[in-house]
Amino acid sequence: MGLIVQKFGGSSVANTERIQNVARIVTDTYAKGNNVIVVVSAQGDTTDDFIEKAAEVNENPSKREMDVLLSAGEQISMSLLAMAIEKLGFPVKSLTGWQAGFLTDSNYGMARIRRINNERIENELGKKNIVIVAGFQGLNRYDDITTLGRGGSDTSAVALAAAFHADLCQIYTDVDGVDTADPRLVKNARKLDEISYDEMLELATLGAQVLHNRSVEMAKKYGINLEVVSSLERKPGTWVKEVTDVEKMLIKGVARDNDVARISIIGLEDKPGIAFRIFSILAAKKINVDIILQSIGRDGTKDISFTVSRSHKDAAVAVLEEIKKSLGAHDIVCEDNISKISVVGAGMQSNPGVASKMFEALTDANINIQMISTSEIKISVLIDIADSERAVVAIHDAFMVDYIK
Amino acid sequence: MGLIVQKFGGSSVANTERIQNVARIVTDTYAKGNNVIVVVSAQGDTTDDFIEKAAEVNENPSKREMDVLLSAGEQISMSLLAMAIEKLGFPVKSLTGWQAGFLTDSNYGMARIRRINNERIENELGKKNIVIVAGFQGLNRYDDITTLGRGGSDTSAVALAAAFHADLCQIYTDVDGVDTADPRLVKNARKLDEISYDEMLELATLGAQVLHNRSVEMAKKYGINLEVVSSLERKPGTWVKEVTDVEKMLIKGVARDNDVARISIIGLEDKPGIAFRIFSILAAKKINVDIILQSIGRDGTKDISFTVSRSHKDAAVAVLEEIKKSLGAHDIVCEDNISKISVVGAGMQSNPGVASKMFEALTDANINIQMISTSEIKISVLIDIADSERAVVAIHDAFMVDYIK
Repeated sequence: MGLIVQKFGGSSVANTERIQNVARIVTDTYAKGNNVIVVVSAQGDTTDDFIEKAAEVNENPSKREMDVLLSAGEQISMSLLAMAIEKLGFPVKSLTGWQAGFLTDSNYGMARIRRINNERIENELGKKNIVIVAGFQGLNRYDDITTLGRGGSDTSAVALAAAFHADLCQIYTDVDGVDTADPRLVKNARKLDEISYDEMLELATLGAQVLHNRSVEMAKKYGINLEVVSSLERKPGTWVKEVTDVEKMLIKGVARDNDVARISIIGLEDKPGIAFRIFSILAAKKINVDIILQSIGRDGTKDISFTVSRSHKDAAVAVLEEIKKSLGAHDIVCEDNISKISVVGAGMQSNPGVASKMFEALTDANINIQMISTSEIKISVLIDIADSERAVVAIHDAFMVDYIK
Repeated sequence: MGLIVQKFGGSSVANTERIQNVARIVTDTYAKGNNVIVVVSAQGDTTDDFIEKAAEVNENPSKREMDVLLSAGEQISMSLLAMAIEKLGFPVKSLTGWQAGFLTDSNYGMARIRRINNERIENELGKKNIVIVAGFQGLNRYDDITTLGRGGSDTSAVALAAAFHADLCQIYTDVDGVDTADPRLVKNARKLDEISYDEMLELATLGAQVLHNRSVEMAKKYGINLEVVSSLERKPGTWVKEVTDVEKMLIKGVARDNDVARISIIGLEDKPGIAFRIFSILAAKKINVDIILQSIGRDGTKDISFTVSRSHKDAAVAVLEEIKKSLGAHDIVCEDNISKISVVGAGMQSNPGVASKMFEALTDANINIQMISTSEIKISVLIDIADSERAVVAIHDAFMVDYIK
């Protein structure tokens, strides 16, 4: 008995049958005496359909209007879910982002939650209503609708769990929890019983689709009791928590991210402040840079390479071309036939052999490494995209050999 | 130069091409130096699709959740129209009902506008933005979304015209204006150049689809300069105004309404207060009664017949069955194979021959009249639904013989 936040993604509410299934999960939880706040995404492909519709009218619409359009998606799914719950005889109210008190900044399409005004939801919970909240959306200070970006519903759920001091935040998905690798790529992938916030954060950031990284960050910050669990089968999922019992497992997962482009600035003068200038201009243009690598070039010059998501590639190149001359750079080179493969695990902090084991697996598979980047609990390599599936399988099986049943 | 409100119905924004067409109409008006407020309905069949989706989940959903669902429809069309206007290079903002300041009562599904908070729209107009407003929707005092019922976007448009003292309110449709009869039924139907508020009100109430009767009522009350005009062809429409130059035309139009059921209460005791009791109970159940007829029955009893829309038929019969005994009624009889045919025209006030001319046309066509009801500017008859198309044509051509080109 307590307060439980349950989040259901687009595939969990994709059609009538699935909506009815979600209604049963929610009402079962409520019937056990819990207060329940439900967060829903837009149904199935609604968001993609909207984007397509918009593109027909205007290939470059304002982000403000895009957010108005996209936010209609959750309004549809939340009301349908409310009706399904009414049908089962339970008291329920659906609330849009602005009704639920989600106040955000004005960064349309990728807004950040500033705070949640608890009043309305508290009021509804006080009346013993199941509360359904539209994920992914909020309101800025101009009373305009904003959206939180892809995967924003996870963030909505965790933010609600934090604001209402929920006892548990469950993220329902169409897989069985957090896996050691994408089971569509790796036959031997297995579900993890638990994973730490930090590991989950790395995995989410590195391309695992199961949780949005901003939501994991927030869960860690507020110490939210988080469970990733299947909406299709009723069985235990994966717990995300502060510290896990990791001694046994060197790594927790292998992730692949194909949404990567590498940009190299060749032949920079070797003087102070060059890197600062490049990356502050990119930041000002809201281009997120991932891996950065600086190397020594010929004749006392240096090269700087970095990766961005593919959607930012053209913008990044355009910005650099503008300042190329003043940087004194010889050339700007761009490459997007690449994939980033990462291994993640807190266990590597006390096991220096992880990197060499990863490189060995790639060498055995005859896969060339283009770039390497490491943090305390992850190692990423850039490789040719054509090798990416083989690489994931090879690395996964090398590390997981002891745990594969 | 002034402030113009333009309303576009669902068929006018049904697809990308039509949205682009509307964007051109709007921006042409703006480019002439006008301030423009645009009201849009949901695209084409969106509302029907939503109703169907809802029915799959719950055949009897709460009206509150239904309004949440339906109001997503205008959110989609208004943002797409805004994008199309952006594409043409004009400044534009789309606003939902609550953003636009539409405050309504809490009668979900059929809410009435209490007032419009002008602030936001004034603000946007002040910034020289074209303002697009979601028709059909508002917000009640609990901060919940309401809808105004079918045809509510007309009411939204006229209410905005009144609140902002607009110089003109244009209702764009896929026909060429207000016709003397439904051109799909009557080959000889022709567009009216003008019609009075009262005549339009009768026609709208009697089943002409072109304007919602509540919007006409409001236009009359505030003296709104109203034009019904085609969104597909650029040519003059029909002006709706206080007094028209009607001498020449005996009637303005013939309307057919098939959404009629007749309920008869047979053998009532002939004592005071019976009618009051029946109709006050129906009113309490929010059942709208149209034509009422009381006649003398056998043995000193009396019969009361009345018509309701078909959707209210079962509820009305149920109410009456409950009180049948206490009314001392013999029987309750229900009939819905009927159609209501009406002629409307202020000209009939000074021309006593209108009724007989209508009955003559029906007699010549060998159509039996079941019930007659008249007001100052209209005459309605109930006939067998099988005869309804023939009746409209016969009556229309009898009256319009002098005006048919």
